[in-house]
Amino acid sequence: MEGQKEERLTRLAVPAMDRLLGQKLPVLDQGFVRVIDYMGSDQSVVQAARVSYGQGTKTVHDDRELIRYLMRHDHTSPFEMCEIKLHLRVPMDCWRQWIRHRTANVNEYSTRYSVAIDAAYATAPDAWRKQAKRNKQGSEGFLDASLGEELSREEAELQQRCRQVYNRRLELGVAREQARKELPLSTYTEAYWKIDLHNLMHFLALRLDPKAQWEIRCYAEVIAEKIVAVWCPISWEAFADYKLKVIKLSAREQPIVKWLSQGRLREALDEALRIGFVTGQGGKYKRSLECQEFEDKLAILGLVPPWQDDLQE
Amino acid sequence: MEGQKEERLTRLAVPAMDRLLGQKLPVLDQGFVRVIDYMGSDQSVVQAARVSYGQGTKTVHDDRELIRYLMRHDHTSPFEMCEIKLHLRVPMDCWRQWIRHRTANVNEYSTRYSVAIDAAYATAPDAWRKQAKRNKQGSEGFLDASLGEELSREEAELQQRCRQVYNRRLELGVAREQARKELPLSTYTEAYWKIDLHNLMHFLALRLDPKAQWEIRCYAEVIAEKIVAVWCPISWEAFADYKLKVIKLSAREQPIVKWLSQGRLREALDEALRIGFVTGQGGKYKRSLECQEFEDKLAILGLVPPWQDDLQE
Amino acid sequence: MEGQKEERLTRLAVPAMDRLLGQKLPVLDQGFVRVIDYMGSDQSVVQAARVSYGQGTKTVHDDRELIRYLMRHDHTSPFEMCEIKLHLRVPMDCWRQWIRHRTANVNEYSTRYSVAIDAAYATAPDAWRKQAKRNKQGSEGFLDASLGEELSREEAELQQRCRQVYNRRLELGVAREQARKELPLSTYTEAYWKIDLHNLMHFLALRLDPKAQWEIRCYAEVIAEKIVAVWCPISWEAFADYKLKVIKLSAREQPIVKWLSQGRLREALDEALRIGFVTGQGGKYKRSLECQEFEDKLAILGLVPPWQDDLQE
Amino acid sequence: MEGQKEERLTRLAVPAMDRLLGQKLPVLDQGFVRVIDYMGSDQSVVQAARVSYGQGTKTVHDDRELIRYLMRHDHTSPFEMCEIKLHLRVPMDCWRQWIRHRTANVNEYSTRYSVAIDAAYATAPDAWRKQAKRNKQGSEGFLDASLGEELSREEAELQQRCRQVYNRRLELGVAREQARKELPLSTYTEAYWKIDLHNLMHFLALRLDPKAQWEIRCYAEVIAEKIVAVWCPISWEAFADYKLKVIKLSAREQPIVKWLSQGRLREALDEALRIGFVTGQGGKYKRSLECQEFEDKLAILGLVPPWQDDLQE
Repeated sequence: MEGQKEERLTRLAVPAMDRLLGQKLPVLDQGFVRVIDYMGSDQSVVQAARVSYGQGTKTVHDDRELIRYLMRHDHTSPFEMCEIKLHLRVPMDCWRQWIRHRTANVNEYSTRYSVAIDAAYATAPDAWRKQAKRNKQGSEGFLDASLGEELSREEAELQQRCRQVYNRRLELGVAREQARKELPLSTYTEAYWKIDLHNLMHFLALRLDPKAQWEIRCYAEVIAEKIVAVWCPISWEAFADYKLKVIKLSAREQPIVKWLSQGRLREALDEALRIGFVTGQGGKYKRSLECQEFEDKLAILGLVPPWQDDLQE
Repeated sequence: MEGQKEERLTRLAVPAMDRLLGQKLPVLDQGFVRVIDYMGSDQSVVQAARVSYGQGTKTVHDDRELIRYLMRHDHTSPFEMCEIKLHLRVPMDCWRQWIRHRTANVNEYSTRYSVAIDAAYATAPDAWRKQAKRNKQGSEGFLDASLGEELSREEAELQQRCRQVYNRRLELGVAREQARKELPLSTYTEAYWKIDLHNLMHFLALRLDPKAQWEIRCYAEVIAEKIVAVWCPISWEAFADYKLKVIKLSAREQPIVKWLSQGRLREALDEALRIGFVTGQGGKYKRSLECQEFEDKLAILGLVPPWQDDLQE
Repeated sequence: MEGQKEERLTRLAVPAMDRLLGQKLPVLDQGFVRVIDYMGSDQSVVQAARVSYGQGTKTVHDDRELIRYLMRHDHTSPFEMCEIKLHLRVPMDCWRQWIRHRTANVNEYSTRYSVAIDAAYATAPDAWRKQAKRNKQGSEGFLDASLGEELSREEAELQQRCRQVYNRRLELGVAREQARKELPLSTYTEAYWKIDLHNLMHFLALRLDPKAQWEIRCYAEVIAEKIVAVWCPISWEAFADYKLKVIKLSAREQPIVKWLSQGRLREALDEALRIGFVTGQGGKYKRSLECQEFEDKLAILGLVPPWQDDLQE
Repeated sequence: MEGQKEERLTRLAVPAMDRLLGQKLPVLDQGFVRVIDYMGSDQSVVQAARVSYGQGTKTVHDDRELIRYLMRHDHTSPFEMCEIKLHLRVPMDCWRQWIRHRTANVNEYSTRYSVAIDAAYATAPDAWRKQAKRNKQGSEGFLDASLGEELSREEAELQQRCRQVYNRRLELGVAREQARKELPLSTYTEAYWKIDLHNLMHFLALRLDPKAQWEIRCYAEVIAEKIVAVWCPISWEAFADYKLKVIKLSAREQPIVKWLSQGRLREALDEALRIGFVTGQGGKYKRSLECQEFEDKLAILGLVPPWQDDLQE
């Protein structure tokens, strides 16, 4: 590091990010994400790692390999050396999930100080989702559009009614902090949200998951594809390879994979029965929830579980 | 510390807290705070400080003096050695403020997983607060009860309507995560909230402040007086003396206090003019917002500012 | 949750933990770990999850299944509802690594306030480890005992000399905060360390790793096996299955596993060549570092890479 | 905020900071602080506050007044919107204190991966500080230079000896992670340290305190005066006025100040006796430690305690 210390530094800049600054990237009907500022780039990850490793690494890895090595081995601190500040407009309902990520800096629009933003998230007639059956906290498929038509009309009326009551309270002199109490959760709010790259990627991993609510997933996708992939493309690629698309095989699943990959179906089935992934006998099996999740992994690995043919739903 | 290490320990317990465990302490119309568990006591603060200080302190301070010393000098880490877990029922509106305190562990009731709690915070006819004039984010005084009567009726109808729409969506098979979007912010939620004593006291300092919203202040008062004062009475007393009731004199205010306490009114006025606390002349003065806050402190110190008689509002 | 709220609660206790309280569990030559207090148990994890999920889950999962589900799906917040406080004695060198885990509360013995603990970590003649060749930050194998004999003697003399200088400075009246500056990193320090179960398990995952330094691994093993496994046995078992012993297959590795498990060695090799895991041709291959890590996973899954026979080291 | 959203943004830059980038600001004999990157400026604090407050504030406060208002009322979140990254070289002893500030991102030079930096902090003959009498964790005054001469010689020899032993171990093939264990705490380490403005100012408040150790105070002064005052001059000025130079009067001290400022010495003395600040009688008084701290504040306010004349030390 000796030589490098003398030199003057110029702030790292990512030209594609500089072009993005201030632009509203639309999400949902009236929401957006907007980059306000950023610090660092893929280069900063490398720079920080080299402080830890000293000069030795320079010959061993090139930058891309170094970043991938760090990601693969959960050396997360160099990824904390990049920081980004976003301006968000999100429905409060969505914001309630967002704010649960604690390692971020936040300034939210205050409806104590100012009149609430006059915008609510509206649902299109064909966008009413049905309660998922297996996943108690999810949705799947859509309601009939004709039914949706009616629900959307009712929604619009209710949002309008809530706003009328809110406005009337303000006109009568009720304090803003109290008048807002019957605003619906679909009301939009805005915030400045500042976070480091490591924690942002962790946020994205959780919120890009198919089990995350559709609305916050829309925001996560915009942030991932239009912002992070532009800002730190090498880190993002490594994150996708090693985190987003990873398959995790638990201690209990490994022996079954082993038997299956050796074509020993009998042993695989016995093991599955032994650990309770599969119950029943005589060729009629029931699978546990965990086993069903396991089958998704097996499919990616091209393996066919021996209990599949004889399932009893 | 040598001698103490050999001995077996018994978990510290606070009998008055043990009696409190599980009891609902009511707040607002349908809210509550309930202690689920706790770890440590005033004794733990002392115990942790003694690790830092070694044996030397035992003779110098008794426990109470040690705790007060720690509080006075912002040695906050020993207060982090106590932990408490509360079960809360709060309006979502209030929870939105609560959750901004990041150094806590949280499990909130999930309205994706379960049907939303069927309770909303109702405003009594005589409890509609007026927008404060000076403090843009506050309230002061109450609306006329007759007007309040009407507002409360309207509120009840709107809450009922929101719930109807919510229930109808559920009946039609809309996913819970989506059906909830027009629930009003007054809907109650529940959470387990776990936090250490230092961060809890910091939360209380902010939320007991007269400028905090009345609703969250109600929760803060219950937590302060019925829980923390019972759990760690010595720490709480020190916190009240050195933090809650403290008067802070800024670098700019100190010279004015100095002149005033020496009866040199002319110099005090000149200084106030010089730094812009007071503007105008000829005995007709206007005070800055900061100056008005300063006057509250002067009143407690029994000092009368020389510009008070000739104010021009 | 309705019914449960009325009842009085008793603090959750784990009898085996109560027996452990205060006992010194020895680590290294003069170090120890000692449980001072704890809050919660496996039962608290379930309790917190049920707040999130409402009553619905009670029939679906029993407690063990619920805990395993939470762990498998990275629902980490219920594991934050348990808290533990440990008293540690560790060499400063080791403490430097320990303190990098930021989500914990700490009170360390102050060598400004008190005379430094008169104990340093000594290396046995047969415990001098050799620099690892492949892992630049690790060690492997041991130096010759005869050489170790000499190194241990030299170490003892140097530790003694450092202490003499320290003591002499104190005798001459040098401030403790300055006198300590030539104490060696092997000097023991003590601390109270308080952390929640989720963050403790994260700490253990990193510090039980074979790539972690041997010394801190010794502490991690004692905390894992003698404390966490006693305190929250179900959570610990789930953590071991889904986190500690997990195999992660990256997006790039999955196709190779797929080909191998179908016996299509040619395609597996081509893929490995394509992504640069393997280079060379004509049956003489070199593997990347990442490929070597991959082979460890293949071995567990009972798969043999087709490039293994023709390796060129 | 509507109008502003459309516009493209340019990254905020502070020209004086850009000139500073990469320059080593020397501290102690071989240490330094060096700005690597920064995000935001005073302008970002204002920008973030305006998101919270909406447009209303623009007419009320100009930027400076707004920043001062935020600081005065502990609205800390806008100050978290600025971020800075420093490259530090500090003695390990000092780093042990530094790293206790948890809300920062850190990459430290790894002595597992690389050979330890060959530099140790040396004490000049006239810089050996004496143990403070009243403040058990502090120092005051200096040892005799002749004695210091000897201590510095001994220090140099010991540092040299430690390095010899370290180098020899490395030559013999001992792993770096183990070889380092007898390096003295005076050995320099390096780190990248990234932190937001609010937490940096909190760090500075604690480390600029006269009770902080001299060495870390030297770093804090350079960071405060040469970096923060250049980067965010308005925030820094506000911080100095309202935080650094503030006088805090506790609930117990306020009545005494009140009596004194009204010239009622008898009542002031009685109150001081009543609360135990002063003990004794007949004109011979002893003051508690807290009372002595109180007197420092009285001096600044130009007030003379009535017990001063008759003190019994």
